Amino acid sequence: MSQEINHEFFMREAIRLANESVAAGGGPFGAVIVRDGRILAGCSNSVTIDNDPTAHAEVNAIRSACRSVGNFSLAGCTIYTSCEPCPMCLGAIYWAGIDHIYYGNTRKDAAEVNFADDFIYEELERPIASRRLPMQRLLAGEALESFRLWSAKTDKTEY
Amino acid sequence: MSQEINHEFFMREAIRLANESVAAGGGPFGAVIVRDGRILAGCSNSVTIDNDPTAHAEVNAIRSACRSVGNFSLAGCTIYTSCEPCPMCLGAIYWAGIDHIYYGNTRKDAAEVNFADDFIYEELERPIASRRLPMQRLLAGEALESFRLWSAKTDKTEY
Repeated sequence: MSQEINHEFFMREAIRLANESVAAGGGPFGAVIVRDGRILAGCSNSVTIDNDPTAHAEVNAIRSACRSVGNFSLAGCTIYTSCEPCPMCLGAIYWAGIDHIYYGNTRKDAAEVNFADDFIYEELERPIASRRLPMQRLLAGEALESFRLWSAKTDKTEY
Repeated sequence: MSQEINHEFFMREAIRLANESVAAGGGPFGAVIVRDGRILAGCSNSVTIDNDPTAHAEVNAIRSACRSVGNFSLAGCTIYTSCEPCPMCLGAIYWAGIDHIYYGNTRKDAAEVNFADDFIYEELERPIASRRLPMQRLLAGEALESFRLWSAKTDKTEY
């Protein structure tokens, strides 16, 4: 076996999970997380199966891989996802510290089958006041206390 | 008791959860989800406690509220969060169909205590090719099969 990572092999596995998910009643998305040529997690979208709007393939795979390694960091990992991650999943990938993303379909492909990924990207790029979802600031002075407590804490685990 | 929703009351609860979280070893963030004047879920950030980079206060609260109502939709709900949601959490709020967001601290306040929210917003706004995290498209033709299967499925649950 070659030492070279076979990216197409892992992407085909993500696509296989996406295809199987449709038959199983989930959304048409799959994702695989790999470190050192080994699959740490492979998951599909289970939003409607688990009644969890955050249960996209990438988020499920991140949570599963973190359980597998016992750490909140996935530094050194690559994610293969059957579709360009939505803002939620791309944010999760950044927070997890994943090093590299391979994707198949795009947010525009997803929009053509009625998924909101592209709409949510557009919303996030707007200034808060011109988004469709209303956002208002409240009790700013009081809220800052939690950051003061955080700054003052000497034994905190940063991430 | 007035029929009017006391937004400050619910925001203070989110801030209280954030403050308590620091003492408990979690991140300095809290969120409360409310429908019809009733709290469905109140959670804090548990990234380092649960070894889960997706376990932000808002995501935890969305998952908890969805379990509570047995549905992946939180239409009709308001979220009160001690800090402006990061892209992951704001994406999750859109996917959950939450109607309104109240927030205390901003992404700039969060940056001052070393959280990456603002950096991740900046990354998402860049074209894919100029982000710091490399993203490459692969097997586009094969990946489209999962969307074809989805389109052809007549008994699917859309979301």
